[in-house]
Amino acid sequence: MTKTANSMWGGRFAAGPDAIMEAINASIGFDKRLAAQDIAGSRAHAAMLAATGIISNNDADAIREGLLTVLSEIEGGTFQFSTALEDIHMNVEARLKEVVGEAAGRLHTARSRNDQVAVDFRLWVRDQCDAADEALKALQNALLGQAEAGADWVMPGFTHLQVAQPVTWGHHMMAYVEMFARDRSRFADARKRMNLSPLGAAALAGTSFPIDRHMTAQALGFDGPMGNSLDAVSDRDFALEFLGAATICAVHLSRLAEELVIWSSAQFRFVKMSDRWSTGSSIMPQKRNPDAAELIRAKIGRIFGANVALTMVMKGLPLAYSKDMQEDKEQVFDAADHLMLALAAMAGMVGDMTANRESLKAAAGTGFSTATDLADWLVRELGLPFRDAHHITGLLVALAESQGEDLPDLTLAQMQSVHEGITQEVFDVLGVENSVASRTSFGGTSPARVREAVAHWRKVLG
Amino acid sequence: MTKTANSMWGGRFAAGPDAIMEAINASIGFDKRLAAQDIAGSRAHAAMLAATGIISNNDADAIREGLLTVLSEIEGGTFQFSTALEDIHMNVEARLKEVVGEAAGRLHTARSRNDQVAVDFRLWVRDQCDAADEALKALQNALLGQAEAGADWVMPGFTHLQVAQPVTWGHHMMAYVEMFARDRSRFADARKRMNLSPLGAAALAGTSFPIDRHMTAQALGFDGPMGNSLDAVSDRDFALEFLGAATICAVHLSRLAEELVIWSSAQFRFVKMSDRWSTGSSIMPQKRNPDAAELIRAKIGRIFGANVALTMVMKGLPLAYSKDMQEDKEQVFDAADHLMLALAAMAGMVGDMTANRESLKAAAGTGFSTATDLADWLVRELGLPFRDAHHITGLLVALAESQGEDLPDLTLAQMQSVHEGITQEVFDVLGVENSVASRTSFGGTSPARVREAVAHWRKVLG
Amino acid sequence: MTKTANSMWGGRFAAGPDAIMEAINASIGFDKRLAAQDIAGSRAHAAMLAATGIISNNDADAIREGLLTVLSEIEGGTFQFSTALEDIHMNVEARLKEVVGEAAGRLHTARSRNDQVAVDFRLWVRDQCDAADEALKALQNALLGQAEAGADWVMPGFTHLQVAQPVTWGHHMMAYVEMFARDRSRFADARKRMNLSPLGAAALAGTSFPIDRHMTAQALGFDGPMGNSLDAVSDRDFALEFLGAATICAVHLSRLAEELVIWSSAQFRFVKMSDRWSTGSSIMPQKRNPDAAELIRAKIGRIFGANVALTMVMKGLPLAYSKDMQEDKEQVFDAADHLMLALAAMAGMVGDMTANRESLKAAAGTGFSTATDLADWLVRELGLPFRDAHHITGLLVALAESQGEDLPDLTLAQMQSVHEGITQEVFDVLGVENSVASRTSFGGTSPARVREAVAHWRKVLG
Amino acid sequence: MTKTANSMWGGRFAAGPDAIMEAINASIGFDKRLAAQDIAGSRAHAAMLAATGIISNNDADAIREGLLTVLSEIEGGTFQFSTALEDIHMNVEARLKEVVGEAAGRLHTARSRNDQVAVDFRLWVRDQCDAADEALKALQNALLGQAEAGADWVMPGFTHLQVAQPVTWGHHMMAYVEMFARDRSRFADARKRMNLSPLGAAALAGTSFPIDRHMTAQALGFDGPMGNSLDAVSDRDFALEFLGAATICAVHLSRLAEELVIWSSAQFRFVKMSDRWSTGSSIMPQKRNPDAAELIRAKIGRIFGANVALTMVMKGLPLAYSKDMQEDKEQVFDAADHLMLALAAMAGMVGDMTANRESLKAAAGTGFSTATDLADWLVRELGLPFRDAHHITGLLVALAESQGEDLPDLTLAQMQSVHEGITQEVFDVLGVENSVASRTSFGGTSPARVREAVAHWRKVLG
Repeated sequence: MTKTANSMWGGRFAAGPDAIMEAINASIGFDKRLAAQDIAGSRAHAAMLAATGIISNNDADAIREGLLTVLSEIEGGTFQFSTALEDIHMNVEARLKEVVGEAAGRLHTARSRNDQVAVDFRLWVRDQCDAADEALKALQNALLGQAEAGADWVMPGFTHLQVAQPVTWGHHMMAYVEMFARDRSRFADARKRMNLSPLGAAALAGTSFPIDRHMTAQALGFDGPMGNSLDAVSDRDFALEFLGAATICAVHLSRLAEELVIWSSAQFRFVKMSDRWSTGSSIMPQKRNPDAAELIRAKIGRIFGANVALTMVMKGLPLAYSKDMQEDKEQVFDAADHLMLALAAMAGMVGDMTANRESLKAAAGTGFSTATDLADWLVRELGLPFRDAHHITGLLVALAESQGEDLPDLTLAQMQSVHEGITQEVFDVLGVENSVASRTSFGGTSPARVREAVAHWRKVLG
Repeated sequence: MTKTANSMWGGRFAAGPDAIMEAINASIGFDKRLAAQDIAGSRAHAAMLAATGIISNNDADAIREGLLTVLSEIEGGTFQFSTALEDIHMNVEARLKEVVGEAAGRLHTARSRNDQVAVDFRLWVRDQCDAADEALKALQNALLGQAEAGADWVMPGFTHLQVAQPVTWGHHMMAYVEMFARDRSRFADARKRMNLSPLGAAALAGTSFPIDRHMTAQALGFDGPMGNSLDAVSDRDFALEFLGAATICAVHLSRLAEELVIWSSAQFRFVKMSDRWSTGSSIMPQKRNPDAAELIRAKIGRIFGANVALTMVMKGLPLAYSKDMQEDKEQVFDAADHLMLALAAMAGMVGDMTANRESLKAAAGTGFSTATDLADWLVRELGLPFRDAHHITGLLVALAESQGEDLPDLTLAQMQSVHEGITQEVFDVLGVENSVASRTSFGGTSPARVREAVAHWRKVLG
Repeated sequence: MTKTANSMWGGRFAAGPDAIMEAINASIGFDKRLAAQDIAGSRAHAAMLAATGIISNNDADAIREGLLTVLSEIEGGTFQFSTALEDIHMNVEARLKEVVGEAAGRLHTARSRNDQVAVDFRLWVRDQCDAADEALKALQNALLGQAEAGADWVMPGFTHLQVAQPVTWGHHMMAYVEMFARDRSRFADARKRMNLSPLGAAALAGTSFPIDRHMTAQALGFDGPMGNSLDAVSDRDFALEFLGAATICAVHLSRLAEELVIWSSAQFRFVKMSDRWSTGSSIMPQKRNPDAAELIRAKIGRIFGANVALTMVMKGLPLAYSKDMQEDKEQVFDAADHLMLALAAMAGMVGDMTANRESLKAAAGTGFSTATDLADWLVRELGLPFRDAHHITGLLVALAESQGEDLPDLTLAQMQSVHEGITQEVFDVLGVENSVASRTSFGGTSPARVREAVAHWRKVLG
Repeated sequence: MTKTANSMWGGRFAAGPDAIMEAINASIGFDKRLAAQDIAGSRAHAAMLAATGIISNNDADAIREGLLTVLSEIEGGTFQFSTALEDIHMNVEARLKEVVGEAAGRLHTARSRNDQVAVDFRLWVRDQCDAADEALKALQNALLGQAEAGADWVMPGFTHLQVAQPVTWGHHMMAYVEMFARDRSRFADARKRMNLSPLGAAALAGTSFPIDRHMTAQALGFDGPMGNSLDAVSDRDFALEFLGAATICAVHLSRLAEELVIWSSAQFRFVKMSDRWSTGSSIMPQKRNPDAAELIRAKIGRIFGANVALTMVMKGLPLAYSKDMQEDKEQVFDAADHLMLALAAMAGMVGDMTANRESLKAAAGTGFSTATDLADWLVRELGLPFRDAHHITGLLVALAESQGEDLPDLTLAQMQSVHEGITQEVFDVLGVENSVASRTSFGGTSPARVREAVAHWRKVLG
């Protein structure tokens, strides 16, 4: 049985430590995903070196053109990556030399792998902030579609998974629109904060060449250069902050996914997932397992795991660069991939799902869910203090329960036997439709408020 | 030996499940820290209830005055907290009733404990953002003091804890000023995002009373009310985001602390901690253990632990309120307390510490730390391609090493034996002072650049 | 609003760095919980010092007697703890000197605070392993009670929270008995591994006094002394392993708690929590919120948070003792307290809850839950290959569904129209009672198997 | 810039939700690593089905033979994996049908993918426990080699990274032998606890076929079958416990790695890594960056990240199987791969490294590191109470320090001026060699004790 493990590392053991050192040291296996960013950075650097007279225009032109060739080879899948060349930077530079010759040797002037990888990775993470924003917007739109259709569909509002007060389907959907809006805002803040260029920090101390860091920063879409070269090569805050925003986003996804799993159960029957977002059973054709929702719920594991991993790596690292930091990329790659996947799956699933209006409404009226409406009526119409109104409501609920009925089933006479001031108008607040219609406070669940919120967000999302 | 554990829970076991339920359920033991926020929220709510005609002005005045009395009792230490009353909200309300009588019963109109605790906790966390900002600013000032004094003190710049290139003490200090500036920026973003009021969301659905949520929001310094009542009572993003910002800040503290521990060793002797920030030994009076630095380094444990804890709690919680969320406060309290403590300790320690200029300079020159300066000179002055310059530098370093010398100890003739184009001017870049002076790129380590950065930050910090 | 934070640390800021240093450095605020262990360790040490002739019998007797006096003062609540004396060790020793005079000065011979705190904390954690074992056993007994009563109560077995196959209530309860048995086994392994004494490692190097580490180890119930003095004072594996076992246990608690929350919903109605383990609503007297279950579900947050915190602290610490390790105790104290609380609450809640047999049975029969029984019958009785049997079953389920019926509602003729080999005996496996009765494989859900399992565990638990 | 992200998911977006569902749902991309375990499980199952008469011997023989064919195709790299077939189980079964025809359709009798994946994954993790044990043993042997060679090489023992007392190189190495022994013990316990077979639990309820779970358990090397079918398919404790043991092991690795990084610095010069375990600089040929040590130090990030990830996934999952659990494998695969890699790298690096005896010895004598020896001498030889001895030692250290000397440099007369009882014999304990030689308590640092420990462990390791 141990053969599997043996064949995994046994070969490497036999091959001696050198092979193990190579295995632990090389990064090309994953950092090749930075190819486009690496080449964009190098092209900006070459242009700047020429503009400042550090290299000739001819050399710069050759380098910039050659890098495009290399990029097209990589994108076309014809590039031969070499583990012996360790990382994406050396792989690209080596191939560049084959393509353009000696000029390639001048590209690395006034630069180091330390600032090069910092700029590459930062550009990649910045892209992911944009991708997350787009994916979140798509999800918000899917939720808005549900909210608009069901602005006045009544359903139970839960606390402790117990029916508490009626709310509307639209209102519930809009709660998530708010959450995902905060996520977008967090990614936007993270993007803005990370949008400074480390390029030109060189190994760690800056350089004596008369480089123009503002020029390269601008060429790469940065707001400017970072202010301290030691910090520029040591900093991984941008990756940590991206993972932090991704984690909170994944919390939101897990909450919605949990609700969808529960709502899909035979006991709730609040929603029906489409075939495309369910898996079935070869034996029970009616089966509709909410696999996608479960997988989305689970994605917080690896996303937060990546956050923990990188935080752990960065703890206590002295300045400036330590090799520990090579562990940064795989964590962010994996977390970003799965966040985008989960967002896309959630948007697709939410867009496709069907609410069961009858089940929702039937559930909304159980559990004396309008008891607070009754109490509020007593305060508002009869001027009772809040705590007294609660006491009277409790007596009425107990009376109804003893008869196996709900509050609207009580007669006016029965109500007046508990408090004589109660009038016929009280029945206006006891139905679940009346209840939700009455909650018109800002942000409240009334269909009118929900429609306002939908309209507001339609405008914001453009 | 098991007595300790037994006496902990054994008593409660014996007392039967009720006592255990009380122990697990009550929150007054920790949420009393929210007293000031709870009373501020209630006073704003009462004023609004009167302004909108929901309660009388007389009642509102009595309530608002009475709450001040309760607050002074709490601040004065004379308030009797009751576990039977479960939480801070009920404790305050119960005492208010004793103080002002029946009017107290009208305070809770159009409100629920769900939105009440949400507003209290949010106000508390908002305070902590401000406190973090102040503490970080103080730490930045302490670092600026060090940077200004040592803008031109030469020290080794490390990669892999190996001497790589000379830098300046001021430059190293300024790297942390940048990090802590990002931290401040993150706390500021978090503060801005959390600065919306949940008050008026009531239990979860809003209310049918004609409340004015904008008025209470304004009174409590919020930018406005939250847009969805379900979200308002379910959201703990503000706490998670605070913990996320605190975690990254703690990473920075751990890195600086690690450096201070290493620099305090007998082998490095880069810094000397003051007596006030060290502990000693009864037997070795010269001993100066960097305890404060070690404790600061360790604080990331509990701060990130709190982040993990709350993320774990929030995973998969259905809307709106679940009792799980009661676990939110202790985590944030503990993390905030220890973050502020660590920041204050770091500011004090950095302000008090003494750099050992001789050790720093001596270490800066070891390990052929100016080899890159030599290579850059070959590129810049002789026009060699970067990769060729590196090859020649390697030969010169090997030559010096074989003679047990450093680069500046080579004669011009020896240099020319490796590359004949080398001139006397090369020696200008080989000293560590020359090296750092030459790195004048934006953000570079040259004393001139460091002084500019210090001046910039002095202005920013005001 | 910032006053709260200011009053927290502002006072200490004003008081100058010394106060902050004291605040961050002192541990007496929490390590006083180690008093009983500290005194037990000191008494064993004193006895050994006398037995080996290092101190006199008179001194040892005085010390040992005096320590009992100190212990009784601490347990009686009359002991005055002093922050200036930093920790529990110095507090106890200082008081001992007052009680017995000069002899107290001989107690610390051949010992250091490093091995002293290591032994104290280890004894405390060992106690917690025992406490966890007892609490888990009580919980297993509560589950066994439920399982025994409901060995043949039919309920749905879920996958994806969808009804999959009928199982029995007893079988479901027994699944948790197995989980908690593994937890007990993990705590037992951890206890055994940690049960070696660090006492006598002194500061880190051992000592030149002729001490007998085996004697103190035995006196304190250890299996022997640890084998390396550097390791003895540096090791916190025992705390990490305890937290690891506690985390997995908390996962199990969270799963059961999640089920109880879902089962308590109006939609499921599978269980009813007793009044003692629910909270209600002042307005809805019928309300029964499963607060205890939610709080138990949430406890994994702080327990795993503590695990993360201590792992983070220990990462990368050089040998032997670093002050960072002072952060170990509060994490373990908090995790242990809340684990014990959660276990006790779960045992109480499970013991008190009432299963709703009707709801369970009704739910068990939905969703064609006996389709696999039908397929298995086709394989077993008609000799069809498994995959063919599945195909036929799917056709029969579709037929039943098209008629709005369940499988047992089909007529034999209808069945034979799909596969002519089907006989009347097929109906024996289609009822949920028949289904569960048939699953007699080892570990299966049949009542007979469940009763065997209950009997087995009754015997194991004694 | 956003093209990279777009090309990642944009294609899938364009292709419609089905593609996203497939992407999030399929596991064959990673679970193909379970091929050998899956086939071993199926072969055992087929043999049992025949032995119990559930299928014919002919069918079983065909299946078992065919599975070997499939395995050889997979190991030979000629197998065509299909994503449409979702996972390794369906891929193998589909191919088996091509190889052996209809008999393949009988293999899945009395089994489900739920118990199948549980047994596959458990076998895989069990293998990793064995692999970890072997790798740890190799590392212990490397450490023993160092310890044996340097049993009497004197070096500083540190607390707070400050020189505290002299120890021996061998003693320091042996501290890690102890730690890694505990790791082995933890993996062994985990292995034993997980060594029960879930096979035969079927979907979740067991089966009505007369299977023999003991037979399949034995065939697969398990100690027996798991006792509850619901637990058998729901349990992932074995994975969590493996990750927990891996995490503590990674803590140990990070501590040793941190020491190696610090010891490799120019300021410490305690060790020299071999060329094979260092990386260099093209420009500074003498450079020897401890990259391997840094990477090993960092591996705790992803290993603990995996632990967090899976704990997060499992939190709050209802029984029996939820699709969330599909996230279990990648985490464990990655953590196991990198743990084995880190262990192999550490063993290679430790075996190859060279201690610098001169630096170690010189450092050992600094900082009055024998002050405690002096104090102990005063207690032992002159009968002074411990606290008085400490006071006198402090005075002598202060005297030496004031003269810029160390303790052995004081004259006897100077010593007697502080305490007249001091004799010439005191000088015997003041040298670092004498100091370490004197610490002969069990587990102490004296060369004799270290050699005993080495001999003990040589015997244990066999």
